[in-house]
Amino acid sequence: MRLAVLKERRPAETRVAATPETVKKFTALGLSVAIEAGAGLSAGIPDAEYTAAGAELAPDAAAALQGAAVVLKVRAPLAAGEGEADELSLIPRGALMLGQLQATPEMASAYAKAGIDAGAMELLPRITRAQSMDILSSQANLAGYRAVIEAASAFDRGFPMLMTAAGTIPAANVFIMGAGVAGLQAIATARRLGGRVSATDVRPAAKEEIKSLGASFVGYEDEESKAAQTAGGYAKQLSANFYAKQAEVVATHIAKQDIVITTALVQGRKAPTLVTAEMVRSMKPGSVIVDIASDAGGNVALTKPGEVVTTDNGVTILGHSNWPGRIPAAASALYARNLLTFLITFWDKEAKAPKLPESDEIVKGVLLTRGGAVIHPSLAPAQAA
Amino acid sequence: MRLAVLKERRPAETRVAATPETVKKFTALGLSVAIEAGAGLSAGIPDAEYTAAGAELAPDAAAALQGAAVVLKVRAPLAAGEGEADELSLIPRGALMLGQLQATPEMASAYAKAGIDAGAMELLPRITRAQSMDILSSQANLAGYRAVIEAASAFDRGFPMLMTAAGTIPAANVFIMGAGVAGLQAIATARRLGGRVSATDVRPAAKEEIKSLGASFVGYEDEESKAAQTAGGYAKQLSANFYAKQAEVVATHIAKQDIVITTALVQGRKAPTLVTAEMVRSMKPGSVIVDIASDAGGNVALTKPGEVVTTDNGVTILGHSNWPGRIPAAASALYARNLLTFLITFWDKEAKAPKLPESDEIVKGVLLTRGGAVIHPSLAPAQAA
Repeated sequence: MRLAVLKERRPAETRVAATPETVKKFTALGLSVAIEAGAGLSAGIPDAEYTAAGAELAPDAAAALQGAAVVLKVRAPLAAGEGEADELSLIPRGALMLGQLQATPEMASAYAKAGIDAGAMELLPRITRAQSMDILSSQANLAGYRAVIEAASAFDRGFPMLMTAAGTIPAANVFIMGAGVAGLQAIATARRLGGRVSATDVRPAAKEEIKSLGASFVGYEDEESKAAQTAGGYAKQLSANFYAKQAEVVATHIAKQDIVITTALVQGRKAPTLVTAEMVRSMKPGSVIVDIASDAGGNVALTKPGEVVTTDNGVTILGHSNWPGRIPAAASALYARNLLTFLITFWDKEAKAPKLPESDEIVKGVLLTRGGAVIHPSLAPAQAA
Repeated sequence: MRLAVLKERRPAETRVAATPETVKKFTALGLSVAIEAGAGLSAGIPDAEYTAAGAELAPDAAAALQGAAVVLKVRAPLAAGEGEADELSLIPRGALMLGQLQATPEMASAYAKAGIDAGAMELLPRITRAQSMDILSSQANLAGYRAVIEAASAFDRGFPMLMTAAGTIPAANVFIMGAGVAGLQAIATARRLGGRVSATDVRPAAKEEIKSLGASFVGYEDEESKAAQTAGGYAKQLSANFYAKQAEVVATHIAKQDIVITTALVQGRKAPTLVTAEMVRSMKPGSVIVDIASDAGGNVALTKPGEVVTTDNGVTILGHSNWPGRIPAAASALYARNLLTFLITFWDKEAKAPKLPESDEIVKGVLLTRGGAVIHPSLAPAQAA
């Protein structure tokens, strides 16, 4: 059975869905692995490392996909007219495809039409058994690290307090907004670097997590915020009233910050605006804002997704796309392991093939299509009454 | 008495020789301070902060220098034909000028001809009393910090070991070459960030300093290296034989590194080549080399001073000019304090003017010219026998 890994072609995508490490493991399962030439280059993996791990090198996407039963992707395959190749049309009917596949009704119906069984890994349920397959979590972790490194790089002072013969340079005030996986890693990294770190999150459980990492907690609290968490652990959408009060507390705090890192995502929606234009204007020249939520529209009113902006009052806003893709070797290593774990979990050793039981909670969570039909509960056409 | 601060005009220069903090102190000494408009912008200091501190804003260099008795600079003033302004000709005869002034015979004679008393702060003797005026030390400290931040930013993995649900990403192997002020700060910063840090230096005393910061020591040692330090604490030039043996030890080590930061400067000479092209070729794709010595020609054979290079085997070499200038607010803050301390040390309270006794060791060390003549011992014309 053949497993294919393509070069990612979407803009700003630098990651790759398999590494030499996972190729070895796939081979051990009995799969033959085809890698499109150059697939790992932007993640620092030369073709030779894949072949040394047992993969066959395919000159292009068509050759890699020829006869493939499993296809690993980072992002959704390009469809006709979307770019240099119509990847979708090259994927064999009946293949299982795994990746961050954009689980919209349109995409799902395109996968169904192409006869691909599409597993959208971003829909993985947040249960203990699925943790090691969780691409959102592994990638958010690296985005949080990366945000701090890029903030430090864009900043015109240092993070730690520097005591020198010429006197002391104070530590940078760093404020992390949103203490999910990305936010917690950002707190940890900013603390490592010696910043004076504070953080906020609307989920009540986050306060203790923030404090346990040595940062101070900043935020408005009321009855509503005490229930502001979904069962899956993601932040819930709250009322306009709550956001206004939280914004008031935050506004006073932000004016004193050197670095602000925003990480607030609400699953499946546009990111909430946490930092208004007025708040940005209250900051000192040289301050830096990193908006990890830029791909979802951004948490900062002045963010231009995909761009770096410097405001009139000298505040730099980093709104880069694809934060995990900015640390591509590490991001690919973890992403590839997430997919490997999924396949190993659903691997039928005797048939030497993946086996996805319809009743399994993880399968139900991620599988958009099967046998040419959209089957995901959130996307399937309504049943006749 | 008037003190003037100019906007720096040399390429890649982002720093400024005075900050609002030092302006206040100069004013308290009885000086009136003129700042050229825009002088602090690239260091994150708007004009309004200078005026709030008591400075007068001058529209251009000529206006700032009009009647000035003290002139503070970061880099040597531009002479005729060197750039957009002939700053040198605008400095009043008899003025005291302090900065990193390029103490060559040509420059010194230009200063003498212009009737400027020029204090080249980079020549400050390395004595305890002068520590708080030491611009080389304060700027090297920040260069060392900045080198690590930029290395982390150019690297496609993380510095710390990251333990995630998807498994572990190992810590980066970071190797610091040269454990002077810059190297020691680079060690400390790379350790903060969670890297696995090793370091080397040819000065015997450095070994203990490296270890005391928690890094491991790598290097060749023999009788020659045990005496490889000038009285001032700088590295001495050693024999070709020693460098060959050191290079052997280093070559084996470098092949295993993710990050190499080179900081070896020999006072007044071209920087020694510590990393050969062959060593660079032995490194893995994605590795990063930061050459802090780039302005002195570089410690790495493949460094292109002022540029970022990626080699055929995927190693990125950061050869930026002016490393302290890449963290301009902090660098300006310390540099400005260095100059302030110098002026306060040599301030005649009654005359409300600087007084530089010829016999003082610091004055002897830095003063290139006085009353229209080159007086520095290393530059003055030989006396008739």
